[in-house]
Amino acid sequence: MSAESFEQKLNETADRVTVALDALLPRAEGPEASLNSAMRYAALGPGKRLRPFLTMELGNLVHGDERGLLRAACAVECIHAYSLIHDDLPCMDDDDLRRGRPTVHKAYDEATAVLAGDALQAIAYEILAHPDTHHQGAVRARLVEKLARASGAAGMVGGQMIDIIGERETLDISVVTRMHRMKTGALINFAAEAVTTLKDVEDHIRRALEGFAHDLGLAYQITDDLLDATGEAGEAGKAVGKDAGQGKATFVTILGIEGAEERSRHLAAQAKEHLDPFGERANLLREAVDFVLKRRS
Amino acid sequence: MSAESFEQKLNETADRVTVALDALLPRAEGPEASLNSAMRYAALGPGKRLRPFLTMELGNLVHGDERGLLRAACAVECIHAYSLIHDDLPCMDDDDLRRGRPTVHKAYDEATAVLAGDALQAIAYEILAHPDTHHQGAVRARLVEKLARASGAAGMVGGQMIDIIGERETLDISVVTRMHRMKTGALINFAAEAVTTLKDVEDHIRRALEGFAHDLGLAYQITDDLLDATGEAGEAGKAVGKDAGQGKATFVTILGIEGAEERSRHLAAQAKEHLDPFGERANLLREAVDFVLKRRS
Repeated sequence: MSAESFEQKLNETADRVTVALDALLPRAEGPEASLNSAMRYAALGPGKRLRPFLTMELGNLVHGDERGLLRAACAVECIHAYSLIHDDLPCMDDDDLRRGRPTVHKAYDEATAVLAGDALQAIAYEILAHPDTHHQGAVRARLVEKLARASGAAGMVGGQMIDIIGERETLDISVVTRMHRMKTGALINFAAEAVTTLKDVEDHIRRALEGFAHDLGLAYQITDDLLDATGEAGEAGKAVGKDAGQGKATFVTILGIEGAEERSRHLAAQAKEHLDPFGERANLLREAVDFVLKRRS
Repeated sequence: MSAESFEQKLNETADRVTVALDALLPRAEGPEASLNSAMRYAALGPGKRLRPFLTMELGNLVHGDERGLLRAACAVECIHAYSLIHDDLPCMDDDDLRRGRPTVHKAYDEATAVLAGDALQAIAYEILAHPDTHHQGAVRARLVEKLARASGAAGMVGGQMIDIIGERETLDISVVTRMHRMKTGALINFAAEAVTTLKDVEDHIRRALEGFAHDLGLAYQITDDLLDATGEAGEAGKAVGKDAGQGKATFVTILGIEGAEERSRHLAAQAKEHLDPFGERANLLREAVDFVLKRRS
C-alpha cells in the first residue's frame, strides 16, 4: 500500500472516531457550556488519532466487534486529549500551541483547561462502562480497570511525573525507558489490550498484538524526542527544541541522534515481526510503523 | 445517640477507610515517588470522610456487603480528594491551606498537584472495576458509569465550572441550586447510588436512600456557604469570607443568612423523613444530618 493510501485510511478512521466522539461528548449548553465547549475543542480538534487507529486496526485483525472497538477507541482518545490539556498547562510544559492551534488554557483559561481535562478523563470511563461497549459486564469492567491502570500513577501520569523530574535531575537510560513506557507506551499498549479484552483470542495472538503495541509505543516516543531535537516549529505544529533547552534527559541526549535513530529503527523492525502471524492482512499496520517513524509532528 | 458517640462512630469509619485507602494507593517508590507521595498526602490526610461514611452507613441499613461498600467508599473518597487538589490550585480557588495543612501544590508543587489529582481520579475507577468490589461484572461496570457521571461534566466538574463562572456573572437561585446539585450533590448522591447498585433493594427503599442523599447534599452545601459567610479561619481550617470578597452568588448572598439557615433546616427535616422506613436503625444517619448542619469546617 502506498503512503498516500495509508494516510487516507488513517484519516478515514480519524473521521469515524471524531464523529463518534462528537455524539458522545456533552453539547455546549447550559451555564457550564464553556466546559463542554473546551472538552470538544480538545477532543474533536485536528489530530492523527493514532491510538484510536491502532485500536480499530488491531481489532480488525482479529475480527473484533466494530461498535465495541469504536467505543474503546473513543475512550482512549479522551484520555489522550485530557493528558495533552494538562501537559500544556503553564505549570507543566507551558505550551501555547498544539497542532497549530492555541492550547486549551490559551483558547479558554487555565481553570477551564484543568476542568475540561478532568471531565474528559471521567467520560472515558463512562464510555467504556456503558453496556453498548460489550454485552458482558465483566468485559466492560476489565476494560475500565486496564485503562485506569494504563493512564494512572503506574502508567501515563506516573511517566509524566518522571518526565518533569527529568528537568531537574539527570536520568539514566533505564529510567528514561521506564518513563516512556509509562508516559506514552501504556496508552498505546491499551489499544492492544482493549482488543484482546473485547475479544477472546489465542495466547500467541494476544502476545503478538501486545508486543506490537509495546515496540511501536517506544519507537513513537523516540521519534518524538528526535523531532524535538531536529524538527522545526512549523512542521511539528508546536514548540520544539525545548528538551535540550531544559536540560532534559531524552533518548537523544543519552544516545545521540544517530543512536536514537538506530534504536527506533530496531524497534520498528521488531514491531513488524510481531505482525508475521497475520500475513498481508496486517499491511496497514506495517505502514503505520513507517508512518510513526517518518512523521513530522 | 449523643453527639459525642456519633463523632466517635464517624471517626471509626474514617479510620477504616483510611486503612483501606492506604493499602489501595501506590507506595511512594520508584522515580515517580513524589507523585505517589502527593496522592497519599491528599487522600490519607485528615478529613471527615463524610462520603465514605454515608456509603458505609446507608449500606448497613440495607445489609450490604461490607467489602464492596468499603471499596466504593474508597473510590468516592479518591474522587473527592482529587477534586480538592484541583480546586485549591492557583488558577482555581488559589488556597494555601486545607484542613489546616498546606494544600498539595504548596506542600509539593503545582505540576505534582495536577498529576496527583489526575492519578487519584484514575485509581477511583480502578478500585470500582476490580473483581473484589462485586462478583458481577455488570454491577462493577454500573458503579463505574455512575461515578463517572457523578464526577464529570454533568456532575461535580460541571458544577465547579458554574461556580467559577459565578465569580464573573451573577447567577440566579435556580443556577446556584443546579451548581450545588452538580458540584457537591452528585458525589453525595453517588454514596446512595453505590449502595443501591451493589445490592438489589425494593424501589421505595432505593428512593428513600437517594432522596436522603439528595436533601443532605444540598443542606451540606448551604452550610458551606454559611460557614464561609460567618465562620472564622481557625474554625474552618481554611480561608473564609472569600465568596463575598469575590462577589460570588451563594445561597447566602441570594437568600441572606437567615433565609439560608431556614432553607438548610427545611432540607435537613426532609432528609430525616426519608429515613422513616428504617426506624431506629437509621439513628446514626439522623445524627449525621445534625452534624452536617452544625459542623464548623
